[in-house]
Amino acid sequence: MPLALSVEILWVTPTYPFVLMGTALGVARHNGICCAQVDAWPDPLMRMLHTMLRVGDLERSLTFYTEVLGMRMLRRKDYPSGRFTLAFVGYGEERDTTVLELTHNWDTSHYDLGAGYGHIALGVEDIQSVCDAIRAKGGKVVREPGPMKHGNTVIAFVEDPDGYKVELIQLSSPADR
Amino acid sequence: MPLALSVEILWVTPTYPFVLMGTALGVARHNGICCAQVDAWPDPLMRMLHTMLRVGDLERSLTFYTEVLGMRMLRRKDYPSGRFTLAFVGYGEERDTTVLELTHNWDTSHYDLGAGYGHIALGVEDIQSVCDAIRAKGGKVVREPGPMKHGNTVIAFVEDPDGYKVELIQLSSPADR
Repeated sequence: MPLALSVEILWVTPTYPFVLMGTALGVARHNGICCAQVDAWPDPLMRMLHTMLRVGDLERSLTFYTEVLGMRMLRRKDYPSGRFTLAFVGYGEERDTTVLELTHNWDTSHYDLGAGYGHIALGVEDIQSVCDAIRAKGGKVVREPGPMKHGNTVIAFVEDPDGYKVELIQLSSPADR
Repeated sequence: MPLALSVEILWVTPTYPFVLMGTALGVARHNGICCAQVDAWPDPLMRMLHTMLRVGDLERSLTFYTEVLGMRMLRRKDYPSGRFTLAFVGYGEERDTTVLELTHNWDTSHYDLGAGYGHIALGVEDIQSVCDAIRAKGGKVVREPGPMKHGNTVIAFVEDPDGYKVELIQLSSPADR
Protein backbone atom coordinates (compact mmCIF):
# COMPACT_ATOMS: atom_id res chain seq x y z
CA MET A 1 0.00 0.00 0.00
CA PRO A 2 2.69 2.60 0.86
CA LEU A 3 4.83 1.28 -2.00
CA ALA A 4 1.90 1.51 -4.43
CA LEU A 5 1.36 5.08 -3.31
CA SER A 6 5.01 5.92 -3.94
CA VAL A 7 4.93 4.45 -7.43
CA GLU A 8 1.76 6.33 -8.22
CA ILE A 9 3.23 9.64 -7.10
CA LEU A 10 6.24 9.05 -9.34
CA TRP A 11 4.09 8.00 -12.25
CA VAL A 12 1.62 10.87 -12.33
CA THR A 13 4.20 13.63 -11.97
CA PRO A 14 7.35 12.57 -13.82
CA THR A 15 8.75 16.09 -14.16
CA TYR A 16 10.17 16.32 -10.63
CA PRO A 17 11.86 12.97 -10.23
CA PHE A 18 14.29 13.83 -7.44
CA VAL A 19 11.88 15.73 -5.24
CA LEU A 20 9.35 12.98 -5.72
CA MET A 21 11.85 10.24 -5.10
CA GLY A 22 12.54 11.93 -1.77
CA THR A 23 8.83 12.02 -1.01
CA ALA A 24 8.40 8.41 -2.00
CA LEU A 25 11.31 7.30 0.17
CA GLY A 26 9.94 9.42 2.98
CA VAL A 27 6.61 7.60 2.73
CA ALA A 28 8.40 4.26 2.56
CA ARG A 29 10.57 5.06 5.56
CA HIS A 30 7.60 6.37 7.49
CA ASN A 31 5.96 3.04 6.91
CA GLY A 32 8.99 1.06 8.00
CA ILE A 33 9.89 -0.26 4.57
CA CYS A 34 13.21 1.45 4.19
CA CYS A 35 15.71 3.07 6.45
CA ALA A 36 17.22 5.44 3.87
CA GLN A 37 17.83 8.80 5.46
CA VAL A 38 15.77 11.17 3.43
CA ASP A 39 15.25 13.88 6.02
CA ALA A 40 17.45 15.68 8.51
CA TRP A 41 17.21 13.06 11.25
CA PRO A 42 20.79 11.94 11.82
CA ASP A 43 20.68 8.66 13.73
CA PRO A 44 19.24 5.57 12.06
CA LEU A 45 20.34 3.29 14.91
CA MET A 46 18.26 5.09 17.52
CA ARG A 47 16.21 2.75 19.67
CA MET A 48 14.60 2.47 23.09
CA LEU A 49 17.08 0.85 25.48
CA HIS A 50 15.20 0.91 28.76
CA THR A 51 12.68 2.55 31.05
CA MET A 52 14.03 3.69 34.39
CA LEU A 53 12.11 3.56 37.66
CA ARG A 54 13.43 4.48 41.11
CA VAL A 55 12.72 1.85 43.73
CA GLY A 56 12.84 2.00 47.51
CA ASP A 57 14.16 -1.49 48.19
CA LEU A 58 16.18 -3.10 45.43
CA GLU A 59 16.11 -6.69 46.70
CA ARG A 60 12.33 -6.51 47.07
CA SER A 61 11.98 -5.16 43.52
CA LEU A 62 14.38 -7.69 42.02
CA THR A 63 12.45 -10.52 43.66
CA PHE A 64 9.25 -9.14 42.18
CA TYR A 65 10.51 -8.60 38.64
CA THR A 66 12.47 -11.85 38.39
CA GLU A 67 10.52 -14.35 40.50
CA VAL A 68 7.00 -12.96 40.17
CA LEU A 69 7.13 -11.48 36.65
CA GLY A 70 9.70 -13.89 35.24
CA MET A 71 12.25 -11.35 34.00
CA ARG A 72 15.96 -12.09 34.13
CA MET A 73 18.56 -10.14 36.05
CA LEU A 74 20.81 -8.74 33.31
CA ARG A 75 23.37 -6.62 35.12
CA ARG A 76 23.79 -4.73 38.34
CA LYS A 77 26.31 -2.21 39.54
CA ASP A 78 26.87 -0.35 42.79
CA TYR A 79 28.09 3.25 42.67
CA PRO A 80 29.34 3.77 46.23
CA SER A 81 30.50 7.35 45.60
CA GLY A 82 26.99 8.29 44.51
CA ARG A 83 25.33 5.94 47.02
CA PHE A 84 23.14 4.27 44.42
CA THR A 85 22.81 0.96 42.60
CA LEU A 86 21.54 0.35 39.07
CA ALA A 87 20.02 -3.00 38.14
CA PHE A 88 18.68 -4.04 34.74
CA VAL A 89 16.01 -6.71 34.32
CA GLY A 90 14.14 -7.89 31.25
CA TYR A 91 12.92 -10.68 29.02
CA GLY A 92 15.85 -10.59 26.64
CA GLU A 93 19.34 -9.27 26.15
CA GLU A 94 19.85 -5.51 26.17
CA ARG A 95 21.26 -5.56 22.66
CA ASP A 96 17.98 -6.97 21.35
CA THR A 97 15.17 -5.78 23.58
CA THR A 98 14.07 -2.86 25.69
CA VAL A 99 14.51 -3.61 29.38
CA LEU A 100 13.74 -2.10 32.78
CA GLU A 101 16.34 -0.18 34.75
CA LEU A 102 15.80 -0.07 38.50
CA THR A 103 17.61 2.72 40.33
CA HIS A 104 18.06 2.35 44.04
CA ASN A 105 19.28 5.40 45.89
CA TRP A 106 20.62 3.94 49.11
CA ASP A 107 19.20 6.72 51.28
CA THR A 108 15.68 6.81 49.83
CA SER A 109 13.12 4.15 50.67
CA HIS A 110 9.98 5.79 49.33
CA TYR A 111 9.04 7.89 46.29
CA ASP A 112 6.08 10.05 45.45
CA LEU A 113 4.88 8.33 42.26
CA GLY A 114 2.96 11.33 40.94
CA ALA A 115 0.18 11.01 38.36
CA GLY A 116 2.02 11.28 35.05
CA TYR A 117 3.79 7.98 34.64
CA GLY A 118 1.39 5.20 33.78
CA HIS A 119 2.95 1.77 33.58
CA ILE A 120 5.01 -0.65 31.60
CA ALA A 121 2.88 -3.07 29.59
CA LEU A 122 3.76 -6.72 29.16
CA GLY A 123 2.32 -8.83 26.37
CA VAL A 124 1.30 -12.32 27.52
CA GLU A 125 0.02 -15.37 25.72
CA ASP A 126 -2.44 -16.49 28.42
CA ILE A 127 -3.39 -13.63 30.71
CA GLN A 128 -5.42 -15.72 33.14
CA SER A 129 -2.59 -18.21 33.73
CA VAL A 130 -0.13 -15.38 34.17
CA CYS A 131 -2.36 -13.66 36.74
CA ASP A 132 -2.84 -16.94 38.59
CA ALA A 133 0.91 -17.53 38.63
CA ILE A 134 1.61 -13.97 39.79
CA ARG A 135 -0.86 -14.35 42.65
CA ALA A 136 0.56 -17.77 43.58
CA LYS A 137 4.00 -16.18 43.78
CA GLY A 138 2.78 -13.42 46.09
CA GLY A 139 2.22 -10.70 43.47
CA LYS A 140 -0.66 -8.23 43.72
CA VAL A 141 -3.19 -8.39 40.87
CA VAL A 142 -5.08 -5.12 41.29
CA ARG A 143 -7.31 -5.50 38.23
CA GLU A 144 -8.43 -8.94 37.13
CA PRO A 145 -8.22 -9.89 33.43
CA GLY A 146 -11.07 -8.54 31.33
CA PRO A 147 -11.76 -6.26 28.37
CA MET A 148 -10.55 -2.67 28.79
CA LYS A 149 -13.38 -0.35 29.75
CA HIS A 150 -13.63 1.45 26.42
CA GLY A 151 -12.30 -1.25 24.07
CA ASN A 152 -11.93 -4.95 23.38
CA THR A 153 -8.33 -5.73 24.35
CA VAL A 154 -8.15 -8.02 27.39
CA ILE A 155 -5.94 -6.50 30.05
CA ALA A 156 -5.08 -6.84 33.73
CA PHE A 157 -3.03 -4.77 36.14
CA VAL A 158 -0.45 -5.82 38.67
CA GLU A 159 1.23 -3.56 41.21
CA ASP A 160 4.93 -3.78 41.95
CA PRO A 161 6.31 -3.37 45.51
CA ASP A 162 6.66 0.43 45.14
CA GLY A 163 3.14 0.79 43.77
CA TYR A 164 4.10 1.14 40.08
CA LYS A 165 1.45 -0.37 37.84
CA VAL A 166 2.32 -3.11 35.38
CA GLU A 167 -0.25 -3.75 32.66
CA LEU A 168 -0.67 -7.22 31.22
CA ILE A 169 -2.11 -7.40 27.71
CA GLN A 170 -3.47 -10.57 26.18
CA LEU A 171 -1.65 -11.07 22.87
CA SER A 172 -4.67 -11.99 20.82
CA SER A 173 -5.25 -8.78 18.96
CA PRO A 174 -2.90 -8.37 15.97
CA ALA A 175 -2.27 -4.77 16.99
CA ASP A 176 -0.78 -5.95 20.28
CA ARG A 177 1.40 -8.74 18.93
CA MET B 1 28.24 -21.84 25.16
CA PRO B 2 24.87 -22.56 26.85
CA LEU B 3 24.14 -25.14 24.12
CA ALA B 4 27.50 -26.81 24.66
CA LEU B 5 26.79 -26.90 28.38
CA SER B 6 23.41 -28.53 27.80
CA VAL B 7 24.89 -31.19 25.55
CA GLU B 8 27.61 -31.88 28.07
CA ILE B 9 25.14 -32.32 30.92
CA LEU B 10 23.17 -34.82 28.83
CA TRP B 11 26.30 -36.65 27.80
CA VAL B 12 27.91 -37.15 31.18
CA THR B 13 24.77 -38.31 32.99
CA PRO B 14 22.69 -40.36 30.58
CA THR B 15 20.72 -42.14 33.32
CA TYR B 16 18.28 -39.29 34.02
CA PRO B 17 17.43 -38.15 30.52
CA PHE B 18 14.14 -36.44 31.23
CA VAL B 19 15.17 -34.59 34.35
CA LEU B 20 18.37 -33.53 32.68
CA MET B 21 16.63 -32.53 29.49
CA GLY B 22 14.55 -30.21 31.66
CA THR B 23 17.66 -28.78 33.26
CA ALA B 24 19.38 -28.38 29.94
CA LEU B 25 16.38 -26.63 28.43
CA GLY B 26 16.19 -24.46 31.52
CA VAL B 27 19.76 -23.33 30.97
CA ALA B 28 19.08 -22.80 27.28
CA ARG B 29 15.91 -20.84 27.95
CA HIS B 30 17.63 -18.77 30.58
CA ASN B 31 20.17 -17.83 27.95
CA GLY B 32 17.53 -16.89 25.43
CA ILE B 33 18.09 -19.83 23.10
CA CYS B 34 14.85 -21.69 23.57
CA CYS B 35 11.42 -20.85 24.81
CA ALA B 36 10.43 -24.30 26.09
CA GLN B 37 8.50 -24.09 29.33
CA VAL B 38 10.58 -25.95 31.83
CA ASP B 39 9.85 -24.15 35.06
CA ALA B 40 6.77 -22.84 36.80
CA TRP B 41 6.64 -19.65 34.80
CA PRO B 42 3.77 -20.09 32.41
CA ASP B 43 4.30 -17.62 29.60
CA PRO B 44 7.32 -17.92 27.33
CA LEU B 45 6.09 -15.20 24.96
CA MET B 46 6.08 -12.51 27.64
CA ARG B 47 7.73 -9.29 26.53
CA MET B 48 7.69 -5.56 27.14
CA LEU B 49 5.22 -3.95 24.75
CA HIS B 50 5.33 -0.32 25.78
CA THR B 51 5.83 2.30 28.47
CA MET B 52 2.85 4.54 29.08
CA LEU B 53 3.08 8.24 29.94
CA ARG B 54 0.18 10.64 30.38
CA VAL B 55 0.59 13.87 28.44
CA GLY B 56 -1.19 17.19 28.73
CA ASP B 57 -1.27 18.11 25.03
CA LEU B 58 -1.16 15.24 22.58
CA GLU B 59 -0.31 17.21 19.45
CA ARG B 60 2.56 18.92 21.24
CA SER B 61 3.89 15.53 22.44
CA LEU B 62 3.48 13.89 19.04
CA THR B 63 5.41 16.71 17.41
CA PHE B 64 8.18 16.25 19.95
CA TYR B 65 8.45 12.47 19.72
CA THR B 66 8.14 12.27 15.95
CA GLU B 67 9.76 15.45 14.64
CA VAL B 68 12.31 16.13 17.38
CA LEU B 69 13.17 12.58 18.48
CA GLY B 70 12.53 10.91 15.13
CA MET B 71 10.03 8.27 16.24
CA ARG B 72 7.20 7.17 14.00
CA MET B 73 3.51 7.50 14.76
CA LEU B 74 2.32 3.88 14.89
CA ARG B 75 -1.36 4.10 15.80
CA ARG B 76 -3.78 6.42 17.47
CA LYS B 77 -7.31 6.02 18.70
CA ASP B 78 -9.85 8.29 20.31
CA TYR B 79 -12.13 6.94 23.03
CA PRO B 80 -14.88 9.57 23.15
CA SER B 81 -16.89 7.77 25.83
CA GLY B 82 -13.86 7.86 28.14
CA ARG B 83 -12.71 11.26 26.85
CA PHE B 84 -9.17 10.10 26.17
CA THR B 85 -6.88 9.32 23.23
CA LEU B 86 -4.11 6.76 23.05
CA ALA B 87 -1.22 7.23 20.64
CA PHE B 88 1.72 4.89 20.11
CA VAL B 89 5.09 6.10 18.84
CA GLY B 90 8.38 4.30 18.43
CA TYR B 91 11.38 3.38 16.32
CA GLY B 92 9.94 0.12 15.01
CA GLU B 93 6.79 -1.89 14.68
CA GLU B 94 4.97 -2.90 17.85
CA ARG B 95 5.33 -6.58 17.02
CA ASP B 96 9.13 -6.23 17.08
CA THR B 97 10.04 -3.47 19.50
CA THR B 98 8.97 -1.82 22.72
CA VAL B 99 7.31 1.51 22.04
CA LEU B 100 5.92 4.51 23.88
CA GLU B 101 2.21 4.90 24.60
CA LEU B 102 1.02 8.45 25.13
CA THR B 103 -2.29 8.79 26.95
CA HIS B 104 -4.11 12.06 26.60
CA ASN B 105 -7.03 12.59 28.93
CA TRP B 106 -8.97 15.33 27.20
CA ASP B 107 -9.76 17.17 30.42
CA THR B 108 -6.27 17.15 31.95
CA SER B 109 -3.55 19.45 30.69
CA HIS B 110 -0.99 19.02 33.44
CA TYR B 111 0.32 16.17 35.60
CA ASP B 112 2.32 16.02 38.78
CA LEU B 113 5.30 13.98 37.59
CA GLY B 114 6.35 12.80 41.07
CA ALA B 115 9.87 11.59 41.83
CA GLY B 116 9.66 7.85 41.14
CA TYR B 117 9.59 7.59 37.36
CA GLY B 118 12.98 8.31 35.84
CA HIS B 119 13.03 8.33 32.07
CA ILE B 120 13.09 6.34 28.91
CA ALA B 121 16.59 5.88 27.54
CA LEU B 122 17.40 6.00 23.85
CA GLY B 123 20.53 4.50 22.40
CA VAL B 124 22.18 6.69 19.76
CA GLU B 125 25.12 6.25 17.46
CA ASP B 126 26.39 9.82 17.65
CA ILE B 127 25.14 11.59 20.77
CA GLN B 128 26.56 15.00 19.86
CA SER B 129 24.88 15.04 16.44
CA VAL B 130 21.62 13.90 17.95
CA CYS B 131 21.73 16.64 20.60
CA ASP B 132 22.54 19.24 17.94
CA ALA B 133 19.65 18.01 15.80
CA ILE B 134 17.26 18.00 18.76
CA ARG B 135 18.21 21.57 19.63
CA ALA B 136 17.89 22.67 15.99
CA LYS B 137 14.38 21.25 15.95
CA GLY B 138 13.39 23.13 19.09
CA GLY B 139 13.98 20.36 21.65
CA LYS B 140 15.35 21.09 25.11
CA VAL B 141 18.70 19.48 25.92
CA VAL B 142 18.88 19.82 29.71
CA ARG B 143 22.18 17.96 30.16
CA GLU B 144 24.85 18.17 27.50
CA PRO B 145 26.61 14.98 26.33
CA GLY B 146 29.35 13.80 28.66
CA PRO B 147 30.35 10.89 30.88
CA MET B 148 27.87 10.02 33.62
CA LYS B 149 28.95 11.41 36.99
CA HIS B 150 29.90 8.08 38.55
CA GLY B 151 30.78 6.08 35.43
CA ASN B 152 32.15 6.16 31.89
CA THR B 153 29.06 5.89 29.70
CA VAL B 154 28.44 9.07 27.69
CA ILE B 155 24.93 10.33 28.26
CA ALA B 156 22.76 13.40 27.76
CA PHE B 157 19.27 14.34 28.88
CA VAL B 158 16.45 15.91 26.94
CA GLU B 159 13.15 17.08 28.40
CA ASP B 160 9.85 16.42 26.66
CA PRO B 161 7.05 19.01 26.59
CA ASP B 162 5.51 17.69 29.84
CA GLY B 163 8.86 17.68 31.62
CA TYR B 164 9.53 13.92 31.34
CA LYS B 165 13.23 13.23 31.01
CA VAL B 166 14.60 11.31 28.03
CA GLU B 167 18.11 9.95 28.43
CA LEU B 168 20.36 9.60 25.40
CA ILE B 169 23.10 7.00 25.67
CA GLN B 170 26.05 6.83 23.32
CA LEU B 171 26.13 3.29 21.91
CA SER B 172 29.84 2.76 22.28
CA SER B 173 29.95 0.57 25.35
CA PRO B 174 29.09 -3.07 24.54
CA ALA B 175 26.83 -3.15 27.61
CA ASP B 176 24.68 -0.43 26.10
CA ARG B 177 24.42 -1.80 22.57
